[in-house]
Amino acid sequence: MVEESAKDLSALLRLPPGEPVALAGYDARATPGAPGGKRAGLADSARMGKRLARLQERLWAAGTAGDPRRVLLVLQGMDTSGKGGTVKHVIGHLNPSGCRIQAFKAPTEEERRHDFLWRVRRALPGPGEIGIFDRSHYEDVLIARVRHLVRPAEIGSRYGLINDFERSLAEDGVTVIKCFLHVSYDEQRRRLLRRLDRPDKHWKFDPGDIDERTLWPAYQEAYELALERCAAPYAPWHLVPADRKWYRNWAISRLLLEHLLALDPHYPKADFDVAECRERLLQG
Amino acid sequence: MVEESAKDLSALLRLPPGEPVALAGYDARATPGAPGGKRAGLADSARMGKRLARLQERLWAAGTAGDPRRVLLVLQGMDTSGKGGTVKHVIGHLNPSGCRIQAFKAPTEEERRHDFLWRVRRALPGPGEIGIFDRSHYEDVLIARVRHLVRPAEIGSRYGLINDFERSLAEDGVTVIKCFLHVSYDEQRRRLLRRLDRPDKHWKFDPGDIDERTLWPAYQEAYELALERCAAPYAPWHLVPADRKWYRNWAISRLLLEHLLALDPHYPKADFDVAECRERLLQG
Repeated sequence: MVEESAKDLSALLRLPPGEPVALAGYDARATPGAPGGKRAGLADSARMGKRLARLQERLWAAGTAGDPRRVLLVLQGMDTSGKGGTVKHVIGHLNPSGCRIQAFKAPTEEERRHDFLWRVRRALPGPGEIGIFDRSHYEDVLIARVRHLVRPAEIGSRYGLINDFERSLAEDGVTVIKCFLHVSYDEQRRRLLRRLDRPDKHWKFDPGDIDERTLWPAYQEAYELALERCAAPYAPWHLVPADRKWYRNWAISRLLLEHLLALDPHYPKADFDVAECRERLLQG
Repeated sequence: MVEESAKDLSALLRLPPGEPVALAGYDARATPGAPGGKRAGLADSARMGKRLARLQERLWAAGTAGDPRRVLLVLQGMDTSGKGGTVKHVIGHLNPSGCRIQAFKAPTEEERRHDFLWRVRRALPGPGEIGIFDRSHYEDVLIARVRHLVRPAEIGSRYGLINDFERSLAEDGVTVIKCFLHVSYDEQRRRLLRRLDRPDKHWKFDPGDIDERTLWPAYQEAYELALERCAAPYAPWHLVPADRKWYRNWAISRLLLEHLLALDPHYPKADFDVAECRERLLQG
């Protein structure tokens, strides 16, 4: 049962493949496609939570019967853009058994001994699962570029490798939903200051985050390149304005819902004799 | 801030180490320690959900600052006893980022090439995480015993290996909460019949589950042995009556809450100069 308007928001937020991206042209406080203001958005998110959980169960059930399909939500964005908050508020609606969440940090020594996609392949969702990447293989063309962690030529080759990788995922039945959480420079400052104001948020604060801010323009440029070169029809990038948390949560819930509706997973039919099983149970 | 009555339910449901267990003596419909009937239990569970999430965040935050402590919830029980339902309803209250859920199925070929604890060690929660085992290393003294999958002498040696393993976990800062979900033979039949009645539940049904029922007495005996031999002070077994789902969810929420309260994790203090960071942020 696919809704007619099943991919409205996805169409609205999707970046056109291969076209240059100018992040400065996107208002991080915008709320494209929202059902109204904050109150309406929160209410709609709560409603979607229940629908998401039902669809997730169908996806999982189909997976137990051989349906290879699965979903991979990729979250990227500057510090404080809300990757963690999205997992908490959006993925929190789902049955945790069917979710596979991976936060990617600086690669370990073992990970560095392999190609940059090695650790990503190991963290992919299985059939019926919803995978969530909090950061991802895109770090390898973002911080790696900005911080000159690898040679430029190697960075250059990675865009193509990422595209090949994501195409192979699509062929394996993985619906890849890539979201760039677009937070503004000023909003990031406000959020970092709020962390400093609250002792129970200090653990989230790293003074290194302030140093990273000095590299803001370089990061924006690195994002623009990644968004341009790796926005493929089989794995589009969505630009999600993220200065308003309620909108960010609403939009990602909606993107997930649209893709699950389009997948339209079904409970598998019984491959056993129901009446006979009932009889046997009543006897024993 | 530990409540005075912090481990009341744990004390009530905990099986005394080393004493013989007779499962027939425990009423699976009982509701020991419950705050009232179903309505009160559901309300209290909802309240606990919020407290659990707050404590989980503190545990996680402490982990980021070097606190090695973590929690491991081990769920065991016959088919339909509600291991999956517990994950959905209890763990569903938590931030999925801080949870590490592992469902153990029949061992794969690779897993069989290693000792039986190998795959379990790889699935342990890290510092600050809450791990959940849906089935566990106990299968290796349960189905392995009942179905004669390994020699009796080897089964015999496994209880000791499990105790050693769990002691080492405790020494590493892992709070192990083992729960046996005690469902009755009749309630299992009702639940299996209900799965047959609903086409959207057929995917959960396996005709092999009816065959397993014929081995019910052997499984109960295997559980009794495991509960007796592996109930250690550092990793006690809790017998959770599980015929009433609301009670099962309430009790496991409460056990988790009691143990988190006893751990009393704290937000780490800032190891940086807050005022200086604020200054730098306001300048940039």
